[in-house]
Amino acid sequence: MGITANVKHVTDDMAPEDACARYAAVRTLSLELAVPLSDADATAQSMPDASPAKWHLAHTSWFFETFVLRDHVQGYRAFDERWAFLFNSYYEAEGAFHPRGRRGMLTRPTLAEVLSYREHVDDAIVAAMPLIVERCPDLLELGLNHEQQHQELLLTDLKHLFFQNPIGPAAWPCTHFGKARHYGSEIAWHAGRTGPVDIGATNEDFAFDCEGPVHRHYLLPHALADRPITNAEWCSFIADNGYATPSLWLSDGWAWVRKEAITAPLYWRRSVDGWENFTLAGWHPVDPSEPVTHISLYEADAFAAWAGARLPTEQEWESAARTHNPYLGIQLDRAGAVHPLFVPGTEGLSSMFGNVWEWTGSAYRPYPGYRAPAGAVGEYNGKFMSGQFVLKGGSCATPRGHVRASYRNFFYPHQRWQFTGLRLAKDL
Amino acid sequence: MGITANVKHVTDDMAPEDACARYAAVRTLSLELAVPLSDADATAQSMPDASPAKWHLAHTSWFFETFVLRDHVQGYRAFDERWAFLFNSYYEAEGAFHPRGRRGMLTRPTLAEVLSYREHVDDAIVAAMPLIVERCPDLLELGLNHEQQHQELLLTDLKHLFFQNPIGPAAWPCTHFGKARHYGSEIAWHAGRTGPVDIGATNEDFAFDCEGPVHRHYLLPHALADRPITNAEWCSFIADNGYATPSLWLSDGWAWVRKEAITAPLYWRRSVDGWENFTLAGWHPVDPSEPVTHISLYEADAFAAWAGARLPTEQEWESAARTHNPYLGIQLDRAGAVHPLFVPGTEGLSSMFGNVWEWTGSAYRPYPGYRAPAGAVGEYNGKFMSGQFVLKGGSCATPRGHVRASYRNFFYPHQRWQFTGLRLAKDL
Amino acid sequence: MGITANVKHVTDDMAPEDACARYAAVRTLSLELAVPLSDADATAQSMPDASPAKWHLAHTSWFFETFVLRDHVQGYRAFDERWAFLFNSYYEAEGAFHPRGRRGMLTRPTLAEVLSYREHVDDAIVAAMPLIVERCPDLLELGLNHEQQHQELLLTDLKHLFFQNPIGPAAWPCTHFGKARHYGSEIAWHAGRTGPVDIGATNEDFAFDCEGPVHRHYLLPHALADRPITNAEWCSFIADNGYATPSLWLSDGWAWVRKEAITAPLYWRRSVDGWENFTLAGWHPVDPSEPVTHISLYEADAFAAWAGARLPTEQEWESAARTHNPYLGIQLDRAGAVHPLFVPGTEGLSSMFGNVWEWTGSAYRPYPGYRAPAGAVGEYNGKFMSGQFVLKGGSCATPRGHVRASYRNFFYPHQRWQFTGLRLAKDL
Amino acid sequence: MGITANVKHVTDDMAPEDACARYAAVRTLSLELAVPLSDADATAQSMPDASPAKWHLAHTSWFFETFVLRDHVQGYRAFDERWAFLFNSYYEAEGAFHPRGRRGMLTRPTLAEVLSYREHVDDAIVAAMPLIVERCPDLLELGLNHEQQHQELLLTDLKHLFFQNPIGPAAWPCTHFGKARHYGSEIAWHAGRTGPVDIGATNEDFAFDCEGPVHRHYLLPHALADRPITNAEWCSFIADNGYATPSLWLSDGWAWVRKEAITAPLYWRRSVDGWENFTLAGWHPVDPSEPVTHISLYEADAFAAWAGARLPTEQEWESAARTHNPYLGIQLDRAGAVHPLFVPGTEGLSSMFGNVWEWTGSAYRPYPGYRAPAGAVGEYNGKFMSGQFVLKGGSCATPRGHVRASYRNFFYPHQRWQFTGLRLAKDL
Repeated sequence: MGITANVKHVTDDMAPEDACARYAAVRTLSLELAVPLSDADATAQSMPDASPAKWHLAHTSWFFETFVLRDHVQGYRAFDERWAFLFNSYYEAEGAFHPRGRRGMLTRPTLAEVLSYREHVDDAIVAAMPLIVERCPDLLELGLNHEQQHQELLLTDLKHLFFQNPIGPAAWPCTHFGKARHYGSEIAWHAGRTGPVDIGATNEDFAFDCEGPVHRHYLLPHALADRPITNAEWCSFIADNGYATPSLWLSDGWAWVRKEAITAPLYWRRSVDGWENFTLAGWHPVDPSEPVTHISLYEADAFAAWAGARLPTEQEWESAARTHNPYLGIQLDRAGAVHPLFVPGTEGLSSMFGNVWEWTGSAYRPYPGYRAPAGAVGEYNGKFMSGQFVLKGGSCATPRGHVRASYRNFFYPHQRWQFTGLRLAKDL
Repeated sequence: MGITANVKHVTDDMAPEDACARYAAVRTLSLELAVPLSDADATAQSMPDASPAKWHLAHTSWFFETFVLRDHVQGYRAFDERWAFLFNSYYEAEGAFHPRGRRGMLTRPTLAEVLSYREHVDDAIVAAMPLIVERCPDLLELGLNHEQQHQELLLTDLKHLFFQNPIGPAAWPCTHFGKARHYGSEIAWHAGRTGPVDIGATNEDFAFDCEGPVHRHYLLPHALADRPITNAEWCSFIADNGYATPSLWLSDGWAWVRKEAITAPLYWRRSVDGWENFTLAGWHPVDPSEPVTHISLYEADAFAAWAGARLPTEQEWESAARTHNPYLGIQLDRAGAVHPLFVPGTEGLSSMFGNVWEWTGSAYRPYPGYRAPAGAVGEYNGKFMSGQFVLKGGSCATPRGHVRASYRNFFYPHQRWQFTGLRLAKDL
Repeated sequence: MGITANVKHVTDDMAPEDACARYAAVRTLSLELAVPLSDADATAQSMPDASPAKWHLAHTSWFFETFVLRDHVQGYRAFDERWAFLFNSYYEAEGAFHPRGRRGMLTRPTLAEVLSYREHVDDAIVAAMPLIVERCPDLLELGLNHEQQHQELLLTDLKHLFFQNPIGPAAWPCTHFGKARHYGSEIAWHAGRTGPVDIGATNEDFAFDCEGPVHRHYLLPHALADRPITNAEWCSFIADNGYATPSLWLSDGWAWVRKEAITAPLYWRRSVDGWENFTLAGWHPVDPSEPVTHISLYEADAFAAWAGARLPTEQEWESAARTHNPYLGIQLDRAGAVHPLFVPGTEGLSSMFGNVWEWTGSAYRPYPGYRAPAGAVGEYNGKFMSGQFVLKGGSCATPRGHVRASYRNFFYPHQRWQFTGLRLAKDL
Repeated sequence: MGITANVKHVTDDMAPEDACARYAAVRTLSLELAVPLSDADATAQSMPDASPAKWHLAHTSWFFETFVLRDHVQGYRAFDERWAFLFNSYYEAEGAFHPRGRRGMLTRPTLAEVLSYREHVDDAIVAAMPLIVERCPDLLELGLNHEQQHQELLLTDLKHLFFQNPIGPAAWPCTHFGKARHYGSEIAWHAGRTGPVDIGATNEDFAFDCEGPVHRHYLLPHALADRPITNAEWCSFIADNGYATPSLWLSDGWAWVRKEAITAPLYWRRSVDGWENFTLAGWHPVDPSEPVTHISLYEADAFAAWAGARLPTEQEWESAARTHNPYLGIQLDRAGAVHPLFVPGTEGLSSMFGNVWEWTGSAYRPYPGYRAPAGAVGEYNGKFMSGQFVLKGGSCATPRGHVRASYRNFFYPHQRWQFTGLRLAKDL
């Protein structure tokens, strides 16, 4: 489909200088995200689910160092042999690793040393690019997409960290608060396709292993809402006692609501003037026109029940998104205080890409015919296929060019520190 | 399909005396299961997931008392108003209830008092049967199927309780240990249907809400193993370091294995003479010919990975089972030490019903078009549709006549105190 | 001192028939306490700190079986070799034992079997009494005092168990509710001795090892309150926000109050008519004239701070109690719903023995010169000498004849399921 | 006693310039300790018991700002009103405070901002010194002693943090490793005083409230070891299965050993060449001649039991220490990798001050007649008087001039990240 044409992924017929340009573009954005961070900001870990910014910067480099340079570039010398233990995330096949929940203890190496590590790796990649493009372009491209994922995590982890601080630091100013355009109060419903459709990524362009293989799926009559749910609508749910009505909730969700005393999306607090939410630009009033974000699958599901609707399946969503351009929408272009925003919708479904990740009702399980790749990179996706749900469409923190219709993001149903939101669906 | 004809479910055109006969048959089995139990055996709770036998006996009666007698039989007087708080399991719509994990604290009412409660309810049901058949036959039938589910739970919970006791009590003797017929070492593969199939229960006969609605599903080329995995095969997995090889495991499963120090199925222990397993007839040597049981989804999935196969989807399983008679196989007919056993297989798939519940790779989620019923009974299934996996086919502890091809049992992926096993599948 | 003359402890110059009489008197009371208990009541365990009644009945018999019969009576045959594992409490020197928190899982042996075990042990003890009196009278006497401690625990553990039941069962009726005589509102202060005093038990009569050796201690000028604190006074503390005023509390106590959401003594609840408390005779209104009970050391300490006083030291208490008769007061004589009660005070200090255990401000540590006895019985007291506080004087649940001035009971500062109360002290 | 003459505490007859000199001397040492720390090193928190270095630097300044400047210096303007919430440790009377376990989340304010805060406070203190010396010299002196306590904590917390890092960073080089003089293998015993002694601090010089009032205590015949236990002796305890012999341990200690899998002092690990320990100068071989350190009270008590001895009481220790000069010994003089070291002993007791804090067998409870001061500073010591044990004598990380014979340090029996060791005692 022509709509994906403006990102050129690295392949074996790409000119090395073009590969270098793509590599540099991705790697540079990571550095830009780190600019406002102190050494301490880049080191602290707010919860086991989150990682320090410094760790993201190092881990993404370790990925290139290990799977590209060590495995495919003869003579490469590791920056520091001890760092593999520190910056391997979860690849059991690569040996022991530092426990995830203790990443915040790594005050050394310093941020400056990690930046030197990045330079070391970058220099080696660039020098070996002709050879890399020839031998393992897919691993380089995987590393770049991997880095983009960590760019989004760096932002959401940083937001979570700053939220812990009673002083409420801002990483960047935000220019677009208050610019959301108000939608009409009514959702418009758009019928999707019915009958057998092909779902999943083909091999024509880069995609993660879990997006394929492409396979036949049977869609039943259904419709999708034209847009995500807004903060205004979420406030109605709160006002109608949504968080205190057990009949709306999944059983696990209700246990979670009670145990954690949940009464609003993450990052919301009441002030004398109404709800405020914490952003990467600090505390700001909740804008009723924006799409609601930082909600769990449990909350999304309860809202849908309250609204007399349901969540879309991942196949319904993907089928509808096929005709949308994944490079448009509110996505991450450069460092700054990312935040969802409604922009004027087109006719039909709006905001399918960017803004907020949309929870689907689909458990994250392998597609028919899926096999994890051999070797350590086989641990990338497959082993996470239990207990999690699929999210679609990318968010305001997703680097532009990273997401596509077949993209399957996944989180546990209680997690909500990502830019998560929802779009309703219903049976027809 | 004619194969389901030998159980007559209660419907509004059934003669009251026939309804009384079915009611009595189901209710009597519960009493038989309680015969070998002391008051203490019937009261203790071994873990929050399990319930005391006494509680099962009372809760199933409360179900009839509440949803049939209280709601539909004018003038019925509750046996004891305070007991609703004690014996409501999880129906939020029915008000507050005793915390699940504290059911073992209810040393009063005694087992004798609970048995009186059952008589009280039984007398009222039988007396009102003509009216019940007319007004709410579906609720009576739901209550009977509900009681059958608790009969199976009573057995598995009792097994778990007795296992806690170093003395290893036996509830019943077992007559069939050692009678398993050895299968050939090779699994035979049987191709399933490909293309669109109808999945789920129709409204023609009793089924739980979650089994419907019937809907179109697209099956891809695949095959199922002719039989479940045996203890002999499981021992090979253990011997090949299956429990210590992270690449075989789902990430959540690997975390579980390490945290819980899992090295064998539940109820297994090593003796000087080899593996023993705990049964409702006490400790016995593991019979290599029997189907393996008391394994988690995590273990089933790891075994499948080790075997170069995968778990079947629930749709593949259901499609294959449609032509099998669900009333045959190793199922529960009367009180006794239930245990899986291989019997001579027919050509084709054997042991689809009974013996062990078979884990599928399908997350327990609503079928397309599913809506939970209105009222408290709407909490029966729908609210559990997150985080669990579907199991199919019933077990040696499932009352005969209870299960069918569309039946969807569900448990969390770490749970294994049910009679759970696995059958392999593969893509073609 | 003559005041201890009415209990004759077993010694090597006692006639065997007198030893049998004392043995029978103690052992019989345990049986009487079990009369109202069902098999289930006797089996359930409400928390790791508490034990099932059946376990108390068996463990005390195991103590005699092991340390008297096995070690000193040739030819004795154990009732069941497997039971040592079940009914050893914590004697590491005696080998492995069933985990304390899982005692409620032992539905077998049944209560009836445990009673047979008691008979077996009793028969053997009585038959061997001449030999026992000669060889190990101290171990027999230790076993009897040990059994008396478990009689008190059986009652407090049973109370805790029945409290878990929303139905609030009563074990016995209570005859003395409402008979407490009202005290004047003012506490009268009585100066204690100043200067060096001898503290601890001499070897003249039975005492636990931790009560000695007798040693010199220097008392500073102080006074004790004439009586324990009452429920009326405790209600004033509550009304004055005592539970919400951090400055009154020890730091650990304040953390405990907030974490556990403590707002009243254990077993208290508010009804529309005011405070009620749970007793072994079920729920009853709190009587303002009774001594307050079921409070932790943290609460006792906070109350004392609120009252501008402090807790007595164990030496101040013991010094004052030396002239009191430990066989008088509200103590346990026969099975029934024990509960504290104020009786008319004498001049001077009243209620020093019986009614409620009085928290002291003394940590439970070894007396100067203390050495634990050799062998397994050396684990009786010494190893518990960290983290606990000393209580003095016995309670309404202490078998009469068991306690004395030098007696040191001990519990952790947060524990309050015993009949614990407090008497104030102050510096002069 | 003249031996304390070389520290002049701030009193109302001190010249302001002398007070400024003392103030500067203490405050400057804190800054020196922070020199090798990166912003991240100063921000991370390794466990709830420990605090970030930055937090220590800020909290000690908050103490002066609040209790001296705010309360006694008219016109003082707080550096930042929001910081009181961040840097109040536990003074409930001062209002809400940031949760102790989340101090590592405070990446802002930065280390540089905290250093500015210190300057702001220092300038205000110095400017107001004449007035402070006149009005509240005791609070200034308290603040200085408070800062010295935090200097020791800063070092021990930093050590704990660096220990978490697999890279094992060194904060400073260490000059005295390997310089310990070997002691003879035999302990020499020195009899202490017997009979009534006066214990506790008089009011003549600065002391913490918990060190008084001075009071009479009766000592029984006893002896103290001439020196602390060495690493060589500790290795014998390990080799003799000390960590696996339950009879040596307090019950709580044995539970701790098993739950935490303790087999050696904190910071020890086995290498192919034998034991190594982590220091503020990184990993180094364990020197057999050094006093053992980083042991819990449980370990100290078990060692004493193994050695056939016991821990001294705090009164025995204090009585013996009265004639020793508290300004001598291995203590903290300037920033560097502090570590215990044996220096040539004098006749009699050696190493009473400095080197390692010596666990006593005394629970940390109030002295007779103790009353906490009024106001927030009354929370300094009194509220911690439950569950902890007293340690005496200071360590290599205690600023010289801070400790004295009456000084009572206190920690929970399982804690061992301080420089804790033991000296044996025995009854005579």
